[in-house]
Amino acid sequence: MRKLCQLVLIVTSPILAFAQDQPDAAIMKKIREEGLERSQVMDIAFRLTDVSGPRLTNSPGYKRAADYATKQLTQWGLQNARLEPWGEFGKGWELSKSYLALTAPYYRPLIAFPLTWTAGTKGLRSAQVLLITGSDSAYIASLKGKLKGKILITDRADEYKQSFKPDANRFTDEQLQAMQDPASVRVVRGDTAARRRELEQARAQYRTTVIITPALRKMAAAEGALAILVTGGRNHDGTIFVQGGGSYAAADPENFTTLSLTLEDYMPLVRLLKANIPVKLDLDVATKFFTADTKAYNVIAEIPGSDPKLKPELVMLGGHLDSWQAGTGATDNASGCAVMMEAVRILQAIGVKPRRTVRIALWSGEEQGLLGSRAYVRNTFPDEASRQNFSAYYNLDNGTGKIRGIYLQQNKDCGPIFSAWLEPFKDLGAGTVTINNTGGTDHQAFDGINLPGFQFIQDPIEYNTRTHHSNMDTYDHLVADDLKQAAVIVAAFVYNTAQREEKLPRKPLPQGTK
Amino acid sequence: MRKLCQLVLIVTSPILAFAQDQPDAAIMKKIREEGLERSQVMDIAFRLTDVSGPRLTNSPGYKRAADYATKQLTQWGLQNARLEPWGEFGKGWELSKSYLALTAPYYRPLIAFPLTWTAGTKGLRSAQVLLITGSDSAYIASLKGKLKGKILITDRADEYKQSFKPDANRFTDEQLQAMQDPASVRVVRGDTAARRRELEQARAQYRTTVIITPALRKMAAAEGALAILVTGGRNHDGTIFVQGGGSYAAADPENFTTLSLTLEDYMPLVRLLKANIPVKLDLDVATKFFTADTKAYNVIAEIPGSDPKLKPELVMLGGHLDSWQAGTGATDNASGCAVMMEAVRILQAIGVKPRRTVRIALWSGEEQGLLGSRAYVRNTFPDEASRQNFSAYYNLDNGTGKIRGIYLQQNKDCGPIFSAWLEPFKDLGAGTVTINNTGGTDHQAFDGINLPGFQFIQDPIEYNTRTHHSNMDTYDHLVADDLKQAAVIVAAFVYNTAQREEKLPRKPLPQGTK
Repeated sequence: MRKLCQLVLIVTSPILAFAQDQPDAAIMKKIREEGLERSQVMDIAFRLTDVSGPRLTNSPGYKRAADYATKQLTQWGLQNARLEPWGEFGKGWELSKSYLALTAPYYRPLIAFPLTWTAGTKGLRSAQVLLITGSDSAYIASLKGKLKGKILITDRADEYKQSFKPDANRFTDEQLQAMQDPASVRVVRGDTAARRRELEQARAQYRTTVIITPALRKMAAAEGALAILVTGGRNHDGTIFVQGGGSYAAADPENFTTLSLTLEDYMPLVRLLKANIPVKLDLDVATKFFTADTKAYNVIAEIPGSDPKLKPELVMLGGHLDSWQAGTGATDNASGCAVMMEAVRILQAIGVKPRRTVRIALWSGEEQGLLGSRAYVRNTFPDEASRQNFSAYYNLDNGTGKIRGIYLQQNKDCGPIFSAWLEPFKDLGAGTVTINNTGGTDHQAFDGINLPGFQFIQDPIEYNTRTHHSNMDTYDHLVADDLKQAAVIVAAFVYNTAQREEKLPRKPLPQGTK
Repeated sequence: MRKLCQLVLIVTSPILAFAQDQPDAAIMKKIREEGLERSQVMDIAFRLTDVSGPRLTNSPGYKRAADYATKQLTQWGLQNARLEPWGEFGKGWELSKSYLALTAPYYRPLIAFPLTWTAGTKGLRSAQVLLITGSDSAYIASLKGKLKGKILITDRADEYKQSFKPDANRFTDEQLQAMQDPASVRVVRGDTAARRRELEQARAQYRTTVIITPALRKMAAAEGALAILVTGGRNHDGTIFVQGGGSYAAADPENFTTLSLTLEDYMPLVRLLKANIPVKLDLDVATKFFTADTKAYNVIAEIPGSDPKLKPELVMLGGHLDSWQAGTGATDNASGCAVMMEAVRILQAIGVKPRRTVRIALWSGEEQGLLGSRAYVRNTFPDEASRQNFSAYYNLDNGTGKIRGIYLQQNKDCGPIFSAWLEPFKDLGAGTVTINNTGGTDHQAFDGINLPGFQFIQDPIEYNTRTHHSNMDTYDHLVADDLKQAAVIVAAFVYNTAQREEKLPRKPLPQGTK
């Protein structure tokens, strides 16, 4: 199957592209040695996670990380490193206290984390817990007069499922083969669709836990309840998944105090209340909102091109620097940022002078809908003329796993080029080129206006099971060897794109567009 | 292999035993129906975990659970249900507050739990963290004058290992076959030895985290440090393993405040300190010691025998009711207690009148070394005469997994008997009889004085990976169907033992003993 597939790729590749896209073996070797033997990727990751803390857009943690990145990129000799405003975002937010414990029928500290952009409790409060057993409007209306000072918990029938499958995995040869085999597009599409369904299910599940309660929240706030507790299907073993708890628009009020709990801490409260055993909790949450500057910023820096003719043309690489709050955003996406920063460090360290200008971008607002990259693309490439000087954007944002290949985003003319570029790294596990799309992150901002934007294929490791948007998204969940490998491959791709005679081919415009 | 093995067992079984040990099919059917269709095992488990809380020996949680069990057993018609003192134990202990958070370089709540029998902090304290980089006496001495008001953390080089194997598993047919095949005793012994090594490694690892610090603790206490932080190899994903933090003897002083942290929360503190970035924590721990009654108690209750001749003879079943503190001791060992209670409930519900006296025992002090069962055996069976009226003891204490068979503890004459008794439950997955020993729990108290004491083989599920002695040992990690199955099989074994013409055969005494 593999051989058949490679044959097909070669047949479809123009001979010219094939010839010009043989990477410079000496440079590839230097990149590899610098990246594998003198890597700084874990130190970069340490600075972005342990040192900076959570990096919610417009929070102090984001600012710390962005300042570090700007300074570090400058130290490596990149030019014009800066925080570049991209437009209006909204409020920053930070947690400054979180304590939740069962106090009756006995004491037990609970693992919980407030949803982002929710309000605090104004000190330590003791409260009875009230079981919410309905969600229709009549039921919600019937709560009037009963909620003051109470903590609300919604009845659920979740069952913890023991994990008979490993948390962590890597793509098998068969899976990679299926992705790249032109004869099994159906399978590939199936895989992609399955992955999308999985993510959509996770999102729907998250919405159920949070959005089940808008009417309830309104009533809770109006009646002076203290807080609402939520949990989700993936909250277990002490791992909790925590995202936004409502609007972050500058003019909107603070969102009602809401905490995400592990299933193991949530369900006992429900069961006790159903058995008519009173439940009391101690709760102390303090949060800070930041409104002094509601614009948001990307981090941008450059290695200026060395070829006068090609210097105006851009090769970009990036990943989003912002994170959610419960962890320190290690695999989502300090890993991607550390790899991208390490890739430009490698290029600087080995002393190459790329012909085109290399620009690194660390985005903000990704977690709220690719806001930073979309605004950047809108601001920077507003018209066809501005888009002429753009070759490609490379993104990394699927966790800590090593690079196994690249998604073409249907740009088939790039297939033989990328295959040739991956050839020197096949022994590192990266050889797969798939015609398929992948979504959910910042390359889409480029791809959306038909600029070549690519995301690499990465081994999943624990991304979908343990770390993505969870309190366990921390430095220790990073795999150092995988990040080193990824930085080497990104550096090679960026270098090759910068050196190539031509810009990368673009997809034909969809019919009906100009 | 399987057929060969059964053949061997039949050949070695006396025909007489084989005939008398055919279980009463009608009664087996009734037990099965009551246990599978009208089970109360999960309600019992709920009362022992969610309702009672952690059940450390001599703590209020143990007392709540023991009182519930006594009352419940009485309600089911058992006689003489009581808390029976077994001797001096020491102090009870309970957590009444636990809060730990990073406050510099930024705020982040940490997942931590105080070691059992350690002291509190007398309120909320803010403190700098000091990295302890050595352990020899010169280093410890060099700390003099530097520890006052500090929180101490020991430098470690742990690396989080992603889990490429599932947390939960069940025995495969091959594993079970290997356990029972007389031709593969070597393999079986290997398995048992491997399991023991694994447990020993876990214990050694735990000791490293805790016992590395006796000199440090002494210095910390003398110098007025605030607390010591520890972590262990299995502390990750938000799951922490927490055992004792020192002596619980009535006359001993309170142990130095020590908290177990997740690896994900512990290692960032170490890395920050190594990078010379100051780390501050807020810490608030309150603990209670109970010394009014330092004797400890087992729960005992009986179904009196119906046959005047056999009534003085005992069939016992039990498990330890005590637990560690960070969870609610669901799989260690509310599960075993709930199954044993459910087994006697089943016997009562179907209205059988066992010929011998059935006695259930829920032990305390197991976690500190099988103390309750050993003292019980010493008190109740002090001499050969008292041991004559004993048939067998059945124990359950390997988590929530269903019963797959039974360990003979080298009592080979019981092999054909148990094989016959398991025959009606082979469709439920329980058919394995292995000559091997298993250890670590209360059947050893009986086996140790050559009274027949047995522990069942259970599917491991998450016992060794996630729940054993951890904060995740909670109700939601129980598998209802497995516990129902286990209760049916235990009820059958107890009934069959009570009805049998003869007491169960005993092992020949070791040479040199009388």
